[in-house]
Amino acid sequence: MELSAILEDSCVRDWQTVDPAAVEPVRFAVIGLGWFTKGRALPAMERSDLCTPAVLVSGAAEKADRIAAETDGATHGITYDEFHDGVGTDAYDAVYIVTPNALHLDYVETAAAFGKDILCEKPMERDSDRAAELHATAADAGVDLMIAYRMHTEPAVRRARELIAAGYIGEPMSVTGNMSQRLLDRIDPNPDQWRLDEWLAGGGALFDIGIYPLNTARFLLDADPVAVTGNTASTHDAFDDVDETVSFSVEFPGDVYAQCYASHNARQSSGITVTGTEGQVRIEPAFFQDQTRELHVSRGDGRASVTLNKVDQMHEEVDYFADRVRGDEPIYPDGDHGLVDMHAMEAIYEAAETDRWITLD
Amino acid sequence: MELSAILEDSCVRDWQTVDPAAVEPVRFAVIGLGWFTKGRALPAMERSDLCTPAVLVSGAAEKADRIAAETDGATHGITYDEFHDGVGTDAYDAVYIVTPNALHLDYVETAAAFGKDILCEKPMERDSDRAAELHATAADAGVDLMIAYRMHTEPAVRRARELIAAGYIGEPMSVTGNMSQRLLDRIDPNPDQWRLDEWLAGGGALFDIGIYPLNTARFLLDADPVAVTGNTASTHDAFDDVDETVSFSVEFPGDVYAQCYASHNARQSSGITVTGTEGQVRIEPAFFQDQTRELHVSRGDGRASVTLNKVDQMHEEVDYFADRVRGDEPIYPDGDHGLVDMHAMEAIYEAAETDRWITLD
Repeated sequence: MELSAILEDSCVRDWQTVDPAAVEPVRFAVIGLGWFTKGRALPAMERSDLCTPAVLVSGAAEKADRIAAETDGATHGITYDEFHDGVGTDAYDAVYIVTPNALHLDYVETAAAFGKDILCEKPMERDSDRAAELHATAADAGVDLMIAYRMHTEPAVRRARELIAAGYIGEPMSVTGNMSQRLLDRIDPNPDQWRLDEWLAGGGALFDIGIYPLNTARFLLDADPVAVTGNTASTHDAFDDVDETVSFSVEFPGDVYAQCYASHNARQSSGITVTGTEGQVRIEPAFFQDQTRELHVSRGDGRASVTLNKVDQMHEEVDYFADRVRGDEPIYPDGDHGLVDMHAMEAIYEAAETDRWITLD
Repeated sequence: MELSAILEDSCVRDWQTVDPAAVEPVRFAVIGLGWFTKGRALPAMERSDLCTPAVLVSGAAEKADRIAAETDGATHGITYDEFHDGVGTDAYDAVYIVTPNALHLDYVETAAAFGKDILCEKPMERDSDRAAELHATAADAGVDLMIAYRMHTEPAVRRARELIAAGYIGEPMSVTGNMSQRLLDRIDPNPDQWRLDEWLAGGGALFDIGIYPLNTARFLLDADPVAVTGNTASTHDAFDDVDETVSFSVEFPGDVYAQCYASHNARQSSGITVTGTEGQVRIEPAFFQDQTRELHVSRGDGRASVTLNKVDQMHEEVDYFADRVRGDEPIYPDGDHGLVDMHAMEAIYEAAETDRWITLD
C-alpha cells in the first residue's frame, strides 16, 4: 500500500457496484423531518442520481406538505398515521427512519409489512431487545436493512481502513477516539428535546455520539468488542435522565484496546487514532459533517498529513444504500452489525453502574 | 490568559528563584552510568551553571574512572561499594539516582545517612512499600527528596498547565495521553536488561513510560486519582515477566477521566490532550526527549499550533532541583507526590487482574 495511491484517488467510491444511469433511483419515504433531515438528508437526496426524497413523513400534515413543496423530487407529504395506514406506498421503494430512537421499531414494522427496504438511523433502537426485534422484523419480511453509519462511506475512514488492512501500521495495538460538542448550546432555547429523554433516546452522549468512535473503531479494526468498561457523568439538570458525558474502554481480540470519550458538554472535538507496531493513522477532525477531513499517518521516520476533498457524507451514505438495494452486494452495516453496538453500549452502562469490565457474548 | 503571552515567552523558567551567580553549584554524585546518564544527564550537568557532575558511581571502578575522565567537572569515579562506604562524601552535595528501580531505596538510605539531598528517578521504587520507606528515610534525615519528573519543567507542559489553570479551556472534562516506543528495537541486541526484570523494575510499560501520561495528567489537572482500571498485555517472550503494553483509565475528582496507553511494542508516539467545556489543549509530541514540542490549542472557532523552542529537558530538571536545594521554595514532585503514582500504578495492575475499577485511598 503506497500513500501515493491515497493521495491520487482519496475520495473514490470504491464501494460502488451499479451504474446510476442503468438503474431506477431509489424513491425514499423519509420519516421524521427534524433539523438533521431538512439540513442534511433532503439536500443529499436532491443532489443524488441514485435516490430521491419522494415521500416526506411528519407528525403534522401542514409541515409535511410545506417541506414536500420545497423539496426537489418530493411527490407526497403525509403524516405518521397516514404512513402506517399505507398512504402513498406506490410512491416509494424504501424508507429512511430519522425519528427518535424509541420509534424506529414501529416504522420498521410498517415498512417491512409493505415490503420496503430500510435505512435506519443509529443507534438502532432505545435498547437491544427492541433492536433485535427490529432486525428480526426486517429479516422475516426479506427486506434490506441498513443502519446509517455514515463513517463507513466517509473517504478518510475508508482510506485509513485500507492502510490498516494492508499492514501500513503493522499490527494494530491501540485506538483512541473522541467526539464532543455542546449540545445545550446547539439546541437552546429548546432543551426539552428527545435526545435528553431517556425513554425516547435510550441513552445520552454514548447513544448519540459515543457510538461514532465505538463503531468507527470496529470498522477500522474490522473486529468486534470482547469486553467493555466505562463511566458516565452529568452536570446539567437537562441531563438528569441520560449521560451528558461518557468515557469508555473497549477490548478487541488480540489485546487491542480502544479508549473513547464522548460528551455533550465539552468543546467540539472529534478524532480517532489507531496506533500499531510500525505506524499510526489518525483522522482529525473525524466525525462532524461540514468539516475538511485530515488523515495523519506516520511510519518509520516519516509523517504526513493528507487533506481530503470534502464530501457530503449523507450523499455518500444514501448512495451506498441505493447501490446495495439496486445491486447484488450485501450491506455491510446491517442489523447484525448494529446489534453489536447496542449490546456494547448497554454493557458500558452496566459497567458504569457496577465499576466492572463486562464481557460480551 | 492570552495566547500571546505563551508565544512571547514560552520557555521562560518561571520556576527559578535563585541567581546562579549568587550560589554555589550543587555538586552531584550520579549513581548508575547507563545510556541515559551518559547521553542525557551528564551532558546537561556539564552545561549547567547550577550543578556539576562531581562524583560518578558505577559497578566497575574502571568504567567510573573512564567516564569521570571524560566528564567536565567530575572529580571522582567510584564504585557502588565505595559510595556506600562513604568515599568522596566531601566532593558532593546531592545524589542523582539512575539505577534500576529496585535499588533506589538502598542508595537513598546511604545518601540520607550522609545528609545528602536526593534526586531520584521515577518510578520511586519497585513497589509502594519500598517507595514509602524511601520517602520516610529522606524525611527522617531531613534531606530534600525530588522524584525526577522532567515533564514538570518542560515548557510546553507548564504553558499548557497555566492555560488550564487560567480557565482557557473552561472546566477540564477529559484527558487522553499516550507514550509508546519499540523498546526491543532500542535495546537490541541486549534484551536481557533490567527493564524486563520484574524484580528490578517492579513493572513494565506502565512503570517505565505509562507513568508519563499518568503523572502529566495529574500535573496538568493539578489533581490526584480517585480510581483506576486497566489492562496489560505482552506479545514477546522478553516481556514474560512485565507488561509490554498497558491501557488504563484514571478517574479524577469531578468526574474527569483520563484514558492512557503505553507500549514498548507500538510505534514511537506520545501526546497528551485535555478537553474542557470551552476548549482543548494538546501537546504532541509530548514525552520523548530531543523532539520539538508543539502545543495545539483550540477554543471557540479558533485553533492554533505553537511550536516551542527545544529545551534540554534534563538541564531544566537538574537546574530546578538545584534551585530548590539552594533556595527556599519547596520541591513540587516530592516523595508524597511520587507515592501517589506508585499506589495508582499498583492499583492499575490489580485492576488488570480483577477486571475491576480500584478506588484509591
